[in-house]
Amino acid sequence: MSLLVVGSVAVDSVQTPHGKREKALGGAAVYCSYASSFFTDVRLVGVIGKDFPDEYMDVLKERPIDLEGLEVHPEGKTFHWTGQYEGDMNAAETLHVELNVLADFNPKLSDKLSSTEYVFLANTAPQTQLSVLKQCTSCKLSVCDTMNFWIQSERPALEELLKEVDGIVLNDEEARMLTEEDNLPPAGQKILEMGPRFVVIKKGEHGALMMVRGEENPDELTMFAMPSLPMLKVVDPTGAGDSFAGGMMGYLAQVGQTGPEQLKRALAYGTVMASINIQGFSLDRFRETTNETIEQRYHVLSRMLQL
Amino acid sequence: MSLLVVGSVAVDSVQTPHGKREKALGGAAVYCSYASSFFTDVRLVGVIGKDFPDEYMDVLKERPIDLEGLEVHPEGKTFHWTGQYEGDMNAAETLHVELNVLADFNPKLSDKLSSTEYVFLANTAPQTQLSVLKQCTSCKLSVCDTMNFWIQSERPALEELLKEVDGIVLNDEEARMLTEEDNLPPAGQKILEMGPRFVVIKKGEHGALMMVRGEENPDELTMFAMPSLPMLKVVDPTGAGDSFAGGMMGYLAQVGQTGPEQLKRALAYGTVMASINIQGFSLDRFRETTNETIEQRYHVLSRMLQL
Repeated sequence: MSLLVVGSVAVDSVQTPHGKREKALGGAAVYCSYASSFFTDVRLVGVIGKDFPDEYMDVLKERPIDLEGLEVHPEGKTFHWTGQYEGDMNAAETLHVELNVLADFNPKLSDKLSSTEYVFLANTAPQTQLSVLKQCTSCKLSVCDTMNFWIQSERPALEELLKEVDGIVLNDEEARMLTEEDNLPPAGQKILEMGPRFVVIKKGEHGALMMVRGEENPDELTMFAMPSLPMLKVVDPTGAGDSFAGGMMGYLAQVGQTGPEQLKRALAYGTVMASINIQGFSLDRFRETTNETIEQRYHVLSRMLQL
Repeated sequence: MSLLVVGSVAVDSVQTPHGKREKALGGAAVYCSYASSFFTDVRLVGVIGKDFPDEYMDVLKERPIDLEGLEVHPEGKTFHWTGQYEGDMNAAETLHVELNVLADFNPKLSDKLSSTEYVFLANTAPQTQLSVLKQCTSCKLSVCDTMNFWIQSERPALEELLKEVDGIVLNDEEARMLTEEDNLPPAGQKILEMGPRFVVIKKGEHGALMMVRGEENPDELTMFAMPSLPMLKVVDPTGAGDSFAGGMMGYLAQVGQTGPEQLKRALAYGTVMASINIQGFSLDRFRETTNETIEQRYHVLSRMLQL
């Protein structure tokens, strides 16, 4: 089945201990779309300015990513994020944000796009995520991401969104902030009480924790912990979480099932896609990736975890 | 094969968000011995004061733990650690330490003890660990633990020890401190360059990372990441790392092999023993544990990790 990915398309200026990139192709929806396009047909919904380089458009066209929903603003500039990573590189330090055309992002879906069955609402304002979700008339699985800014400033809209989505993907600090709970399993439990059937707490180099409520018995709780693939060298973690979500959502849309076993394998494909992404800047590594590379790395992960 | 466990025997006063215990049975060598005793015969080497309660001695006698090497000091008091856990409970805050008889801990092994083939040097002064290791004349596998205090104050002795042991188990902060490397896989790599064939970096709730050099080709590096078993409630993390080491060493002594596959399974048994230990204060949960409980939990872990 097809996957709708809604969120930011950006140019990123990034510095890490391994180098620097100015205005590289980035954005949550870009990483997620590119990663998920190895598994299924993707429909990208986002907005760019007239400054968005043609060559970046060509990068997106390399993959089965439908760009009908990528609005080109006639005047504005593309969202530009500037950040750096230091030390253990587990958290980005944002140096500068120019929202530009993203400030008024409020997509109207065509009939085709609104009939997409799998929907990933990458990190944007929860009101925008809600508005998109309401337009999705054939949705079989909806999953959202969020961030600290919305948890603090738009909590009521976020809580409304959480009642509507099937799942949420967020990082450990966001899970703690959302629930005021220090320990992640009880934090996950509190998030499930807010509405979603499953939650994935991303922990960077430490992997991810997934918690799933039973479909028949909502009191039944399944927990999966998945480590990340250990890497001797991380070049640039930008987009790792969105690549993770892309692998996860792409796999789920591909298999068309969302039971606990599929969710676990989706978590593993997310882990694989994140591990590929962090080995290069921007989409560099993904652009060299084939489905064979992905299956090989899945096999490495699977063998590492086999007892 | 038998396992020699050398290290502290303590009374611990601990406070966690789930309660408080005064002068409970504890100490690295106690947690490790008790945990490993489910897998193999254990020989405990430590020192206690004349104040050590008879009932605690009875607890140790519940298991196949040889207490010949447990010296009773005629006058001194038992090592007493006071600490607390707050927030995410990932790190203990030490409130008070009374070394007492542990200050002069310098064990002389009997012929029987020095012929033990598997040796775990729990956290004590590296000079003491070295002295014990030199007395072990039939050692097939030696593994040490250490702590921040020794890394800072006794680095030369620690480096000497690292040239002699087959493996080291330490936590993430200690690995960073020892190598001045923020990222754990390169930190592990640097530790291997100091001498050991394998290193296990314990990450608390995030599990563990093991790195193993090839036996035939030392440049060949195998990395295993293992998550911890997610727990909704952690009662007391005291001794989790030592229980982990106990499960790991006990399993290795039981199977008598130390190839990468055995090391991985040992890591899993360490994970299981840590997950049991943190569900209660002191040795409470271990005392209710059977080999069947352990195998069941290993099965749960194995299923969780099966892709």
